[in-house]
Amino acid sequence: MKSKWYYMGIALLVLMPFMTCAEEAAPPLSADQVQGNLNVVWTLVAAFLVFLMQAGFAMVEAGFTRAKNACNILMKNLMDFSVGALAFWAVGFGLMFGAGNGFFGTEGFFLSLGAEKGNWGYAFWMFQVVFCATAATIISGAVAERTKFSAYLIYSALVSAFVYPIFGSWAWGSLYNGGGWLEKLGFIDFAGSTVVHSVGGWLALAGAIVVGPRLGKFTPSGVKPIPGHSMPLAALGVFLLWFGWYGFNPGSTTTGDASIALIAVTTTLAAAAGAMSAMILTWLKYKKSDVGMTMNGALAGLVGITAGCANVSAVSAVLIGLIAGVLVVFSVLFFDRIRVDDPVGAVSVHGVCGAWGTLAAGIFNSAGFSLTTVGVQLLGIGVCFAWAFGMGLAVFKAIDLVMGMRVSKEEEMAGLDFSEHGASAYPDFHTVHLGSVFTPGEHAFGMAAAAKRASTVAAEQE
Amino acid sequence: MKSKWYYMGIALLVLMPFMTCAEEAAPPLSADQVQGNLNVVWTLVAAFLVFLMQAGFAMVEAGFTRAKNACNILMKNLMDFSVGALAFWAVGFGLMFGAGNGFFGTEGFFLSLGAEKGNWGYAFWMFQVVFCATAATIISGAVAERTKFSAYLIYSALVSAFVYPIFGSWAWGSLYNGGGWLEKLGFIDFAGSTVVHSVGGWLALAGAIVVGPRLGKFTPSGVKPIPGHSMPLAALGVFLLWFGWYGFNPGSTTTGDASIALIAVTTTLAAAAGAMSAMILTWLKYKKSDVGMTMNGALAGLVGITAGCANVSAVSAVLIGLIAGVLVVFSVLFFDRIRVDDPVGAVSVHGVCGAWGTLAAGIFNSAGFSLTTVGVQLLGIGVCFAWAFGMGLAVFKAIDLVMGMRVSKEEEMAGLDFSEHGASAYPDFHTVHLGSVFTPGEHAFGMAAAAKRASTVAAEQE
Amino acid sequence: MKSKWYYMGIALLVLMPFMTCAEEAAPPLSADQVQGNLNVVWTLVAAFLVFLMQAGFAMVEAGFTRAKNACNILMKNLMDFSVGALAFWAVGFGLMFGAGNGFFGTEGFFLSLGAEKGNWGYAFWMFQVVFCATAATIISGAVAERTKFSAYLIYSALVSAFVYPIFGSWAWGSLYNGGGWLEKLGFIDFAGSTVVHSVGGWLALAGAIVVGPRLGKFTPSGVKPIPGHSMPLAALGVFLLWFGWYGFNPGSTTTGDASIALIAVTTTLAAAAGAMSAMILTWLKYKKSDVGMTMNGALAGLVGITAGCANVSAVSAVLIGLIAGVLVVFSVLFFDRIRVDDPVGAVSVHGVCGAWGTLAAGIFNSAGFSLTTVGVQLLGIGVCFAWAFGMGLAVFKAIDLVMGMRVSKEEEMAGLDFSEHGASAYPDFHTVHLGSVFTPGEHAFGMAAAAKRASTVAAEQE
Repeated sequence: MKSKWYYMGIALLVLMPFMTCAEEAAPPLSADQVQGNLNVVWTLVAAFLVFLMQAGFAMVEAGFTRAKNACNILMKNLMDFSVGALAFWAVGFGLMFGAGNGFFGTEGFFLSLGAEKGNWGYAFWMFQVVFCATAATIISGAVAERTKFSAYLIYSALVSAFVYPIFGSWAWGSLYNGGGWLEKLGFIDFAGSTVVHSVGGWLALAGAIVVGPRLGKFTPSGVKPIPGHSMPLAALGVFLLWFGWYGFNPGSTTTGDASIALIAVTTTLAAAAGAMSAMILTWLKYKKSDVGMTMNGALAGLVGITAGCANVSAVSAVLIGLIAGVLVVFSVLFFDRIRVDDPVGAVSVHGVCGAWGTLAAGIFNSAGFSLTTVGVQLLGIGVCFAWAFGMGLAVFKAIDLVMGMRVSKEEEMAGLDFSEHGASAYPDFHTVHLGSVFTPGEHAFGMAAAAKRASTVAAEQE
Repeated sequence: MKSKWYYMGIALLVLMPFMTCAEEAAPPLSADQVQGNLNVVWTLVAAFLVFLMQAGFAMVEAGFTRAKNACNILMKNLMDFSVGALAFWAVGFGLMFGAGNGFFGTEGFFLSLGAEKGNWGYAFWMFQVVFCATAATIISGAVAERTKFSAYLIYSALVSAFVYPIFGSWAWGSLYNGGGWLEKLGFIDFAGSTVVHSVGGWLALAGAIVVGPRLGKFTPSGVKPIPGHSMPLAALGVFLLWFGWYGFNPGSTTTGDASIALIAVTTTLAAAAGAMSAMILTWLKYKKSDVGMTMNGALAGLVGITAGCANVSAVSAVLIGLIAGVLVVFSVLFFDRIRVDDPVGAVSVHGVCGAWGTLAAGIFNSAGFSLTTVGVQLLGIGVCFAWAFGMGLAVFKAIDLVMGMRVSKEEEMAGLDFSEHGASAYPDFHTVHLGSVFTPGEHAFGMAAAAKRASTVAAEQE
Repeated sequence: MKSKWYYMGIALLVLMPFMTCAEEAAPPLSADQVQGNLNVVWTLVAAFLVFLMQAGFAMVEAGFTRAKNACNILMKNLMDFSVGALAFWAVGFGLMFGAGNGFFGTEGFFLSLGAEKGNWGYAFWMFQVVFCATAATIISGAVAERTKFSAYLIYSALVSAFVYPIFGSWAWGSLYNGGGWLEKLGFIDFAGSTVVHSVGGWLALAGAIVVGPRLGKFTPSGVKPIPGHSMPLAALGVFLLWFGWYGFNPGSTTTGDASIALIAVTTTLAAAAGAMSAMILTWLKYKKSDVGMTMNGALAGLVGITAGCANVSAVSAVLIGLIAGVLVVFSVLFFDRIRVDDPVGAVSVHGVCGAWGTLAAGIFNSAGFSLTTVGVQLLGIGVCFAWAFGMGLAVFKAIDLVMGMRVSKEEEMAGLDFSEHGASAYPDFHTVHLGSVFTPGEHAFGMAAAAKRASTVAAEQE
């Protein structure tokens, strides 16, 4: 076994070529400088993991919806990050973190943070932009399979530029602009159960209400399940999201020190517990363990632990996850009952379990239980719902009035891949859909026939 | 080109906001403190990569099995991590690393590591739990397509709580409990060719024997190939596993220093060499290069280098990988010949190549060849087989007696997705299976018809 | 909220067990030593992310081609890394970075870097081998669906051993061998728009020309689209590539300091802008936003920013990405018009946008605009084209003469999965191809029938 000093020697040798490239005879570094570098490396690595959650959302949402809309949902996930990154760069980051008027920031647009802040903002922006994109992409699942692509792009930009950053400034703005009003009250949301997930979830609820349910979902003879077209994609997405969450929660320290270890542990245990309780509950309820619900249970546990990941114990994390896994099942059933059609369960996972996680961060606070803290948590939950759901209704209603949120009945029957993108996600395969039957090769050779067939079917259903 | 000092300035600026958040005027850090933080960051990042191997296993196992069992294998992969993480938290970690009786640990359950160890255990637990989950998930591939989901969950818990941790304490326990008896003899297994992969592989062998071969695999007219349903999923899984292995092997230093570089190199070369030799061998044997075998060759190389990754040279790594790639091909053929049905080759990849890697770590030891070391390695290999295969037989037989390990013939024909979860992995696609034909839309509209058809086919085959 | 010192205490506790494992009472580390360790950790983590780009390429290329060739393209991606890693270890790394004759290195083969360089080369080799593999794998997309697997393996080895490393030594060799001639002129290519992407892209162009277009692509009645078989795989691939690019660009510092933050920002913005402009352009041109082009737009933005990621501003990055997204669309149309069949658009994404990125790094240089710099950039672009396209023609023509680059017409019709590997990527699904119809189960039960059918169809098309 080689000694530590052997490896130190190697490390020095590794450094040498770089040293000779840089200025000669650089004065020695201080340990605080190296810790500063470590903080940047850690924060960026965490940001990259969170970026991969975009792939996770894309796979979960594509897997949980039908083959005829797969291209469309993938495009929405790709483009909400692209639109959102540009919007957050131009406007959102300044509103959220720039010095401001107590309600939102008024400087720092286009990453112009002012000389006094220097260049440190780049690493922080990178970490924040992937959070913003997470909030935005949550909505796409709830409005999937019937929303116009153009309308989607517009509200994505509005969410990333205004809706998310302004709420964010109330809860997280203090690092840079002297303090948001919610955090000054003692609001705990370490990594964003409320700031990211509930904001996304309540916006998703508003979107699902305004755009209305999918054709064939709520019929006179009851609520029809519309199964997603690929469970392997959905499962892959869940694993990618869970993986990315290790950037989301531990990375929210933005400091590379030992405090991240407990956060990784609570994150792991809550996710595992959420999957467990959702699986067991559906097993008891339906005699079979439900695949989609169990996956959503894991995500529910992750959302639930996000607010309190740094300030609850491992045992509390297990409890928080167990409850989140139960909540998500009943919440999905509840929204079905009130006829809100959310194809992937986004409102339940992110909205409801985000609220639960925020409350739980107060209840299980390892600094000790206090009614005041719980009250502040409830206030934050309520303010978030009012802001995100209210702004969501306003934005979606406005878009609906101006240009229409929803595709036509014929387009919905034919599938958004065909009607919005002239494409098929699986041109080499026979796929069958609720109202239209595609045969392979039609993408290249005769999409018109498929369209005619779809509109015939649609007409028959009138 | 900007000077190093320019960037140092940025780093300081990056630190500032965090500094003002923490206590004012914190005394300067020492370099050893920063290295301690770096060790935590590195160990956790590595743990996250190993976590992603769960997605890799899920994709490989789903891809190498049939469409009608895809939901089931995905659920098993998701749930063995979830069950395993809770079991390892409650019981396994204490058995493996707690101070104990020389045979296993007797404290540290529920992450209660005692005041003298403080909180450092969180980072270490996070790294260990993903290793434990790897051992557990290896089994799922070997018993795929015919094992009851409930039986699967029970043995997953037992493996993660008892079987894996107790063997682990013999080989790796010393860091925390004063030394396992195997490592005191000089047993080399840096990252777990034996502790993780062979344990998983021999348990898988016991499982495959107890549960028996799939219907239609071994017929009077010979061994029938049952091809997996999606090579893209399988290939994605192999890439994800390879990626995760960069956490598995280099991360096993649990120290962020230059020693990790050689480990990354040997890991890379062995995997590449394993893929090469498996591909060439099948090309020579069958006139065509076999896709599944080549993928398993890469995994064989990775398993083979895992024990010796830190103490063999780059040239030795290439040799170890080449031999592993050959071994896995002959091993798969061997288990087919003795009528052990292992749908994904898990016993060959993890059991056999794990043993080979452990032996190779002795043979190619860069500290010098010694017969004693090779003897100790052989002892460790033998003890592992005796423990894991023996405990596997006991656990699986016990479960089989109490509740049955295997689904009914009708359920197997219909597919476990339908019989265990009431689901279809691909409801929008026409899929054809050995004994049952599903047509799209049946998930939603009439699964019962498919079930009746399946049972008719099953009856005809009696 | 716990103080920083609380966490420091934890960090020390974390260190303790490792300390007692190493030599007792090790003298304290210096901050420079810890920074050296951080550099190794960062460089390797970045290398691992770049490795995952192999999965990204595999998914994009499989998704953009037909189901009947999916196994083949996956095998090519797996094996070009495997072959390439061994070739780069044996030959390429020495040619690229060893001390040499001013044209290429002449030592350092098999990682034997000489005593004076010690072991530091391992971390650097790991980072470089994944870059080399990226250049090699770019080609596979352009020659997909008709190239012999054996021919593919041979040119992969030649590219990784000779073509890539020799050009690389001109532009990047200076760190280790005293300076490549291009970089001595001031050539800017921070992370490889030219060294990696254009080299791969121009080799791909030569390959596509020598191997010729796919059957049925260019017909008397015009250019026929041959749609890829799985947009979810393609989208997943794009996300994985984007994720891996955060290792590719920021990792090219090989130093873990604050300079990586700006690089992450420019990389993000350019990718987002590329996706935006490609989407908008196709929307304007075709009335529908094109899925494949939008994905390629994101990749075009990433390739475009690679050269200048460290020396352009955020605003410039947006501009570079916007232009790359437009360029890639027109470039794809251009290569269709001159009848070069590039199934995935690799030449346009990597060759053309690599050249654009290299020019842009000169034009938008934040150190100030200088005509000399732009001239040197143009020289580098031209030299790269001459070398890579010229060597590509020579290598591919030589292979074509000796053994044939292309499969037979019958094999192409039947699909390379069947003809080269005796396999089907999706044996449980009905798939339909241009010239051959497979039905599920044939893989196991009667591939011969499918082959006969394919050859009949091929004969009819003569």
